[in-house]
Amino acid sequence: MKDKGTNILLLLTPKAQVEYLFDDFTVRQAIEKMKEKRYSMIPVISRETGKYLYSLREGDFLYYLAERHLSFPELERRPLASIPPSRDIRAVPVSESVPALFKTILGQNFAPVVDDQGVFIGIVTRMKVMDALMPEGK
Amino acid sequence: MKDKGTNILLLLTPKAQVEYLFDDFTVRQAIEKMKEKRYSMIPVISRETGKYLYSLREGDFLYYLAERHLSFPELERRPLASIPPSRDIRAVPVSESVPALFKTILGQNFAPVVDDQGVFIGIVTRMKVMDALMPEGK
Repeated sequence: MKDKGTNILLLLTPKAQVEYLFDDFTVRQAIEKMKEKRYSMIPVISRETGKYLYSLREGDFLYYLAERHLSFPELERRPLASIPPSRDIRAVPVSESVPALFKTILGQNFAPVVDDQGVFIGIVTRMKVMDALMPEGK
Repeated sequence: MKDKGTNILLLLTPKAQVEYLFDDFTVRQAIEKMKEKRYSMIPVISRETGKYLYSLREGDFLYYLAERHLSFPELERRPLASIPPSRDIRAVPVSESVPALFKTILGQNFAPVVDDQGVFIGIVTRMKVMDALMPEGK
């Protein structure tokens, strides 16, 4: 493992460079936002407190649409909060140890990172962690 | 890196244990199949030749549905082939070197693996590669 893999902050993609959804979005707004970058998973944060709430996957939207046979105009009236997250993507505190982060990120595309108040400050992507783990020169 | 990370076959999840779609499925059949396991991406193979064709993401289905405002009954008539893959997920030959595989898998959930005829024989998941790369005892 390279030295750069030793501190969560060194692996952080800060909030300003991350796409996320606010909890008061409609389903339509959320889909438009996700579509821009084609992320397979995206964090949802509280507009009021800035706290990380949960993460939604493209599939959560897909099966929500497919199961409910929703028409497109209906999507504008449905609140994002009506889509349940299928996976429990927990946030890691910025103080978390890097080995603990590695374990968390094995099973998910990114780990949301929060400060000691639970406020969302960014993400660590699996890509960055894998890059840090990659054998040198390969 | 542990020794087990040195041969693609040792990292392979064989076809019999993998979910995949046939190219002659309808969109409806494909969604039902993906939903069972909630994979975010799935390989499409030729029913006739068994060859690997491409991979589709949950998002490919989501935006296909959202953009076309399709009703559920219509999904039964739409062929899977009408959904374009958004990403070029190339198959790796089983003879590929493991370092080359590592590079491929950085940016995708799994790498489809094919024999020298292009026939799909299974996948290597990023999870397995990460596990092989994981520092010992962490």
